[in-house]
Amino acid sequence: MNFKISKKSFLDSLTLVFRAVSSNTPLPSLGGIKIEVEENKITLIASDSNISIKSVIEGNNEEALIINETGEIVIDGKYLMDIVRKIDGNLVSFETIDGLLVKFSGEKSQFKINGMNAAEYPVISFEINDNKPFEIDSKTFMEIIDQTAFACSDKETRPVLTGVNLKVENGVLHANATDSYRLAYKKVKVDSDIGINITVPAKYLNEIYHSIGNNSELKIAIDNQKISFIIGNSVIQTRLLDDVFPDTSRLVPATFSSKLLVSSKEISNAIDRTSFIKSDGKNTVRMNISNEAVEITSSNQIGSSFEKIPVVSYEGNPLEISCSGKYLQDAIRSLSCETVEFDFSGELKPMILKSTDDESLIQLISPVRTYR
Amino acid sequence: MNFKISKKSFLDSLTLVFRAVSSNTPLPSLGGIKIEVEENKITLIASDSNISIKSVIEGNNEEALIINETGEIVIDGKYLMDIVRKIDGNLVSFETIDGLLVKFSGEKSQFKINGMNAAEYPVISFEINDNKPFEIDSKTFMEIIDQTAFACSDKETRPVLTGVNLKVENGVLHANATDSYRLAYKKVKVDSDIGINITVPAKYLNEIYHSIGNNSELKIAIDNQKISFIIGNSVIQTRLLDDVFPDTSRLVPATFSSKLLVSSKEISNAIDRTSFIKSDGKNTVRMNISNEAVEITSSNQIGSSFEKIPVVSYEGNPLEISCSGKYLQDAIRSLSCETVEFDFSGELKPMILKSTDDESLIQLISPVRTYR
Repeated sequence: MNFKISKKSFLDSLTLVFRAVSSNTPLPSLGGIKIEVEENKITLIASDSNISIKSVIEGNNEEALIINETGEIVIDGKYLMDIVRKIDGNLVSFETIDGLLVKFSGEKSQFKINGMNAAEYPVISFEINDNKPFEIDSKTFMEIIDQTAFACSDKETRPVLTGVNLKVENGVLHANATDSYRLAYKKVKVDSDIGINITVPAKYLNEIYHSIGNNSELKIAIDNQKISFIIGNSVIQTRLLDDVFPDTSRLVPATFSSKLLVSSKEISNAIDRTSFIKSDGKNTVRMNISNEAVEITSSNQIGSSFEKIPVVSYEGNPLEISCSGKYLQDAIRSLSCETVEFDFSGELKPMILKSTDDESLIQLISPVRTYR
Repeated sequence: MNFKISKKSFLDSLTLVFRAVSSNTPLPSLGGIKIEVEENKITLIASDSNISIKSVIEGNNEEALIINETGEIVIDGKYLMDIVRKIDGNLVSFETIDGLLVKFSGEKSQFKINGMNAAEYPVISFEINDNKPFEIDSKTFMEIIDQTAFACSDKETRPVLTGVNLKVENGVLHANATDSYRLAYKKVKVDSDIGINITVPAKYLNEIYHSIGNNSELKIAIDNQKISFIIGNSVIQTRLLDDVFPDTSRLVPATFSSKLLVSSKEISNAIDRTSFIKSDGKNTVRMNISNEAVEITSSNQIGSSFEKIPVVSYEGNPLEISCSGKYLQDAIRSLSCETVEFDFSGELKPMILKSTDDESLIQLISPVRTYR
């Protein structure tokens, strides 16, 4: 094996696939990155058996790639990253000099490292059989992740709640995430007539989020037990959660008894100022809502806070309701709108937060009971 | 107690004294900050019994201070910081409303917190009896800390080595720090005729370093078992280490067998590129020095690195010597010079690093034995 490659494009691809390298695996080769050198391209593969990433590098006018000898090898992922990150110059030369011993040369610096036999690396199939991939605007998909994944559960007691449910029906993609105390729901139109109902682990969606970067071409393919994201020359595939996702549509109340409009910035700043007042590690805020103002209080054994912010409008009877300050902040941030609408059905019923000018995103938060 | 104060000057003083608040103390009041309100000034005090900080706030044209009622109280340090950091507006109103219950008001936000009785706070004396304080340029003192404290031991096996030894003799301050594998030595002239030989814990010197900030007036006073740093309106006093500091002067070889001049930047970059190659968590670099070049190698079971950098000059026989890459990097950084001078006395004798144009700072590093 012998090739010379632009440091930048090598490092970009390594950084992407490195997300899938196992840090703790009984199979040493999974701690490595597999490098396949063919006549006109290099393929990098990494996997921790839950998430697998493949990235293909082809030379172009801007990024050099000169292949002198083909072959394949596996190299410890962390070392490989460190070497390519640290090596000097704009070009990296890679050559096997003695069996599995690989030499990297930069401008002045040289590194040698013992690789692993590529034959020992598990076979990972990136083939897509069952369904035709469909295209989705990458910015839209990043927005879906950003606006829903935070609401997933971080506890493994009900594994399916650690994922975002994606359902495609009649050309509409419905994304749902819930930890059973809050719910994030987003819908967008997609250009596909297939029917899908899958749940993707939130932690992998967050990896996808960071992998999309400035790349605008994104295709999604769903296979038997996996989902593949095709981003430019790379494929990221992750396993799915197989339990049935709960039917969340019945959680959203059909009618409301009161409706509050308030400045997102003012309410968010007020909650932020009380965020350090915690009981059992949680910041609970009480909202006292009337036609004129929202009074926000928070208290624990040591102290208390009080804020009064004007309403834009309020229709309904005065209401006192308490909930997690963090959940409120997460929901308001995800809406990124100037005026946030709260729909209430009583002090013990879930409240809905949405933007006044966009119906595609709904955030639902269950109140908590507080005792004075 | 009742006063109104500029948020900025309150927060600045709180941030300073907060460095001494105990995070883990059997005495609850030491987790707090003592606020003493007199007719024309406010004094904040915090202590963890090893380090104590006092900061006095007096109003001036730029920073408001209006005192309506005097008194004293202790308030949980973390809550106090959070409240003053988070409160809105430029002015903070502070009033005791019911015994130990304190109300903070900003522009719109209000916080209440239960304070502690000031009578329960231990008496901390900031008086200086034995010696007259001497003035030292604060930039010079920060430089002394920066160039020596890193060389202290981080192990408690020989407690005195966790501190920097400061010795004043005939108007010269000698600073020494060693973990017994390396030594940092710095000397500066001071305007004092007293004789001093004390050892100050490095971790407190680092606190002092960050507390000096842009303040240029610094006075130092040494008392029986403590050192006081007087910075503007604040005093930071810390305990001293009482064991005898080893005589380090005999560690520096009097004669040398060879002398290398090399570009700081080139050797530092080369070592940095090999820094990830570690055995037992340590990066050891081997230098092969001749009239033409320094060859730098580093290796462990997985791989190796090789670099060749030109010398500015080398006088002496070819030499092969190994030492900690981190120690080399620390020493070169502290010298902050363009060309670094290495003085060698053989491959098993300590090497000296210094700047070619400044004799006031010396870094000594013991070599390590390596086996090929």
